[in-house]
Amino acid sequence: MRPSRRTPDELRHIRLTRHYTKYAEGSVLVEFGDTRVICNASIEDRVPRFLKGAGQGWITAEYGMLPRSTNSRVGREATQGRQGGRTMEIQRLIGRSLRAVVDLVALGEITLTIDCDVIQADGGTRTAAITGSYVALVDAVNKLVKKRIIARNPIHGQVASVSVGIYEGVPVLDLDYQEDSAAETDMNVVMNEAGAFIEIQGTAEGHAFRMNELQSMLDLAKTGITTLLEKQIEALSRN
Amino acid sequence: MRPSRRTPDELRHIRLTRHYTKYAEGSVLVEFGDTRVICNASIEDRVPRFLKGAGQGWITAEYGMLPRSTNSRVGREATQGRQGGRTMEIQRLIGRSLRAVVDLVALGEITLTIDCDVIQADGGTRTAAITGSYVALVDAVNKLVKKRIIARNPIHGQVASVSVGIYEGVPVLDLDYQEDSAAETDMNVVMNEAGAFIEIQGTAEGHAFRMNELQSMLDLAKTGITTLLEKQIEALSRN
Amino acid sequence: MRPSRRTPDELRHIRLTRHYTKYAEGSVLVEFGDTRVICNASIEDRVPRFLKGAGQGWITAEYGMLPRSTNSRVGREATQGRQGGRTMEIQRLIGRSLRAVVDLVALGEITLTIDCDVIQADGGTRTAAITGSYVALVDAVNKLVKKRIIARNPIHGQVASVSVGIYEGVPVLDLDYQEDSAAETDMNVVMNEAGAFIEIQGTAEGHAFRMNELQSMLDLAKTGITTLLEKQIEALSRN
Amino acid sequence: MRPSRRTPDELRHIRLTRHYTKYAEGSVLVEFGDTRVICNASIEDRVPRFLKGAGQGWITAEYGMLPRSTNSRVGREATQGRQGGRTMEIQRLIGRSLRAVVDLVALGEITLTIDCDVIQADGGTRTAAITGSYVALVDAVNKLVKKRIIARNPIHGQVASVSVGIYEGVPVLDLDYQEDSAAETDMNVVMNEAGAFIEIQGTAEGHAFRMNELQSMLDLAKTGITTLLEKQIEALSRN
Amino acid sequence: MRPSRRTPDELRHIRLTRHYTKYAEGSVLVEFGDTRVICNASIEDRVPRFLKGAGQGWITAEYGMLPRSTNSRVGREATQGRQGGRTMEIQRLIGRSLRAVVDLVALGEITLTIDCDVIQADGGTRTAAITGSYVALVDAVNKLVKKRIIARNPIHGQVASVSVGIYEGVPVLDLDYQEDSAAETDMNVVMNEAGAFIEIQGTAEGHAFRMNELQSMLDLAKTGITTLLEKQIEALSRN
Amino acid sequence: MRPSRRTPDELRHIRLTRHYTKYAEGSVLVEFGDTRVICNASIEDRVPRFLKGAGQGWITAEYGMLPRSTNSRVGREATQGRQGGRTMEIQRLIGRSLRAVVDLVALGEITLTIDCDVIQADGGTRTAAITGSYVALVDAVNKLVKKRIIARNPIHGQVASVSVGIYEGVPVLDLDYQEDSAAETDMNVVMNEAGAFIEIQGTAEGHAFRMNELQSMLDLAKTGITTLLEKQIEALSRN
Repeated sequence: MRPSRRTPDELRHIRLTRHYTKYAEGSVLVEFGDTRVICNASIEDRVPRFLKGAGQGWITAEYGMLPRSTNSRVGREATQGRQGGRTMEIQRLIGRSLRAVVDLVALGEITLTIDCDVIQADGGTRTAAITGSYVALVDAVNKLVKKRIIARNPIHGQVASVSVGIYEGVPVLDLDYQEDSAAETDMNVVMNEAGAFIEIQGTAEGHAFRMNELQSMLDLAKTGITTLLEKQIEALSRN
Repeated sequence: MRPSRRTPDELRHIRLTRHYTKYAEGSVLVEFGDTRVICNASIEDRVPRFLKGAGQGWITAEYGMLPRSTNSRVGREATQGRQGGRTMEIQRLIGRSLRAVVDLVALGEITLTIDCDVIQADGGTRTAAITGSYVALVDAVNKLVKKRIIARNPIHGQVASVSVGIYEGVPVLDLDYQEDSAAETDMNVVMNEAGAFIEIQGTAEGHAFRMNELQSMLDLAKTGITTLLEKQIEALSRN
Repeated sequence: MRPSRRTPDELRHIRLTRHYTKYAEGSVLVEFGDTRVICNASIEDRVPRFLKGAGQGWITAEYGMLPRSTNSRVGREATQGRQGGRTMEIQRLIGRSLRAVVDLVALGEITLTIDCDVIQADGGTRTAAITGSYVALVDAVNKLVKKRIIARNPIHGQVASVSVGIYEGVPVLDLDYQEDSAAETDMNVVMNEAGAFIEIQGTAEGHAFRMNELQSMLDLAKTGITTLLEKQIEALSRN
Repeated sequence: MRPSRRTPDELRHIRLTRHYTKYAEGSVLVEFGDTRVICNASIEDRVPRFLKGAGQGWITAEYGMLPRSTNSRVGREATQGRQGGRTMEIQRLIGRSLRAVVDLVALGEITLTIDCDVIQADGGTRTAAITGSYVALVDAVNKLVKKRIIARNPIHGQVASVSVGIYEGVPVLDLDYQEDSAAETDMNVVMNEAGAFIEIQGTAEGHAFRMNELQSMLDLAKTGITTLLEKQIEALSRN
Repeated sequence: MRPSRRTPDELRHIRLTRHYTKYAEGSVLVEFGDTRVICNASIEDRVPRFLKGAGQGWITAEYGMLPRSTNSRVGREATQGRQGGRTMEIQRLIGRSLRAVVDLVALGEITLTIDCDVIQADGGTRTAAITGSYVALVDAVNKLVKKRIIARNPIHGQVASVSVGIYEGVPVLDLDYQEDSAAETDMNVVMNEAGAFIEIQGTAEGHAFRMNELQSMLDLAKTGITTLLEKQIEALSRN
Repeated sequence: MRPSRRTPDELRHIRLTRHYTKYAEGSVLVEFGDTRVICNASIEDRVPRFLKGAGQGWITAEYGMLPRSTNSRVGREATQGRQGGRTMEIQRLIGRSLRAVVDLVALGEITLTIDCDVIQADGGTRTAAITGSYVALVDAVNKLVKKRIIARNPIHGQVASVSVGIYEGVPVLDLDYQEDSAAETDMNVVMNEAGAFIEIQGTAEGHAFRMNELQSMLDLAKTGITTLLEKQIEALSRN
């Protein structure tokens, strides 16, 4: 029995709220149960130094947690003077996942920065962030297309993400914090609308996992991501 | 005429939402119109080094803005590796304002940290932060009292804050961003429930201001703060 | 009775020594009693990035204390790897105060940096720094005018600053460290030659202050600043 | 055809040289073809703060590249004042992989730090580092056992790692830099001696990969790791 | 002919002003011509971590330059977030030089920090700093002895320093900035009262120097240091 | 008797291995007994900011130690966020020594960076680094000449370095760690092929040293450097 009384293949309540703040070109509040992340997409008319003159754009992400988004307060990274390893790992993952579905040459010399800020963390913040960021990205890119700053839509795929794991010997979908901290294996899966993998990151916390366990977890992930992709389309179809 | 069509002595729509996140001992979303700040109060069972053995507690604040809380994206301080001067100035102000209404000896060897994170910035973020932080502080302290960790409530006053300024020659209350960026004078006032000043910070942006202008601005501030103090009591009286 | 045996409206001994060091375009040692601050104005033929192409100049200040300018040694900020919040607050205040009396467009694409370094700190270092910096600024600007680098003098006002406070219930002028650390209220006032306010920063340390106390303090500040403005003119008229 | 003329399931020439430097408790030079990494294990008689009093030890890793270990010089992280995101990601992975085969309670209040420094980078530095670090770890732990500092050997498994990927449509094992930079998919696999997964990290660089491609890559990884585990045993059996 | 019209073996005008600031336990303004350095010695009742429990004290130095102590403004190290290599080199040299004449065990568990802050830099700031720091050190230690905090005076020697160099082919003593920047060789010599070397640091700027040139420079240094040692005694004999 | 049983004027076993890594334009492993340093020379087609438009090139060095190159692990500078004073001192010394034998104008607008990374430290790492760096520099410059990027070879001299000291009252050459840590005086000497000094840095650790001791040490250094210069030529003459 899962602490949340969900079935093993049951997602938490998913909510994608667009236009969450008024300034960002794309602004989405994504909720996976009690996990809440604001994803703001910003358009900037420049490219990073390493792409100067390369005739393409860039998509990058930054991730942060409010100090009290968690059960006990964690130090503010701005005060500590640097981002921790976990933060860097997550923001690099979000950036790669989004770039996988965008034609950067078609984007042109534009940088899209997605800021993912965690208001409340109850497990799965990085998967929620990827899922929400995609929606924010679409909104921002649509503005570029509408204003004719870019000729055609450079987004050629759809991307969402979910965590899976093995909790008390059973493969489960979309772990909350209570499950996550007790899980034997924890895996984050990023997939596209064709059911292919963009990223897989699995870690054995307790015991090493075998091929059949991996298979079960990936099947669960596919189920979950299929629903998340629908939720994204549904959100984007509203106003 | 103010851009928002408000009268000179009219506050924006004020909202104080308690229990905004689930982990913090006190958690308030404060809204002054489109300005939205999350104020989370955390209790920690320790005191900063400079108070070791001094037999008293401490109240401190940290302030941050989401990178896209503003019209154009500002760099994330965690990425830049340090907090800017404005951030430090504001968090020092919030901390001083709250300490002014708390008996730190009665608090005992406890540190209360108030994290003020700006979700959307439309002027007056520091005054909103002070006003919301007071409510979060009360909630956190009440938990300490209820759990009998401290014998008596160390909060001996009430504090709120508002900005005033001179916009197109007229003293106005609670400036939004559009007014603020065009104001000739900008002043932040922090007062207690007795109508006395805890902090005054006034800056002439355009021309230096005279004693009579100062007087008008302080009168407006008093009017505004009186309302804010009521809003705080109202919020605290709700469940 | 004040510890220094001064009357409530009595400034400390004020000294402004120009040409204090030989390299800076303006170099002033300012002394408010035992408080000694070197104010060096440097001319640089560039503007900060945010003003590139804006057709105007900039005036900025940096502030520092020698580690042993105070009673007990404070860590060197260069060693600690960052400026503290108090330092940033003060240098921002000095910069704003000076910019209030200069026409930055008339200054042209030049940056004037005023370095205020505290040799000995006995209270009121920021007000001494503002008062001395004005004189250093005038000296530096006069060199620009004399060399015909700028066509006309862009300084259109005069600025000085003093602290006031309430010490043992009595409003007093120009607090030294002993008074400052025991004061109930501490206020820094920056005024121009017309008696108008450029900046007011008042903080209740002990009890919140009322309107009549504010009025008394501002009156004292005006008296003190009138004298300081005369001292500046006197210093500038020498040699 | 692979650029190195290897067959798809062929590892590069693997070398594990123990006792590479004279001070470290375990010191291994690991070579995967032209990729060369020094893995030094250091024993320290302390635990990190978060484990104080927890009655267990810790294993951590640090990773660095010599500035000219790569084709064009990369800036020295010590000069830049911080480790980059890729560095942090890798050193966290190495640490997790090693901790998966050690009983930290049996280790006792000891910290083992494995420094992995890349002398020459030709692809697969992180997998070489994990493979070499295991051998260095065993040597260091054996010293602890021999000196009777710990009662029994806390290492309960064996761990090695290899990269796999899809290069020109074909799944291949142990990519060198030329393949790696052109690969469509890049995956790092960490396994134990039972053929179970400790960590999987796969990234689609070109197109998203499907379940059957994942399966082929994991099969290749298993083949490669089987050989690497043998090489480790062989190296450890030499004096 | 030297730019300053001094003879090759002539020091600049030397001044040692004790009790320069009022807080430091030893405070000396040292002047070598236009080079002016404040040397403040602070007593702290602790030892650095690496000496905990070692039953001895420590003497350390920190060095800084006011941003406009030089001809063109140099960035403030506190703003840049770190001390430069030259600064570190100099403060390490000052510390070593002073420790060479003090019995650290007799000093007891006390740290003496000497802050050397350059007000005006006209060449030879490090040699002036060493020469002045010795006097500040003696004053501070005498306070410890007078207060019976330490039983006997731990200073067992005297130390001073001067620069020598080869300017236009001629060995010269105590180079000012104009000579220094044009010198072919630049050497800093630290000696004790017995005429023995504590430190020699010589650098060929133009052409490499030969043994006989070294000999001439060291002879000049000895002459200069003899005078400096006398100046120190003279200063210390004044009230 | 020296711990290593060497005679006072005997160098350790010296080895210079060229082409040590495959990417750097010059790559040398230098060994002075158990001290091992990799010296990699990198060519970059740019000059530092302070030389922009000056029509000359630049040679700079960076120095680092692997954390476990020493007897007990020292913290990684990249993790600590800054290079220590000793590191900066050494890399500045290496850079100056190499620049002393190169005509920077003839080099043209090119920067040569020499990375000296210590694999194993048994005393004399800086002198080994200078000696090895010279060989790496020659290899890199020869590539520039061969590719006709520069018209003529800008290296006009040869440079090597050794340490000398007084150990148990006897002047000795090329101290290893055991001698170094017990030496009364420690001196690093850098000389060119004409037997002239490029740099001398001598420090009295125990007692101050006299002129005759200095003379003996410099004689020893000359003997040692003569051999080192031959070893360099020998290494460069091989393939």
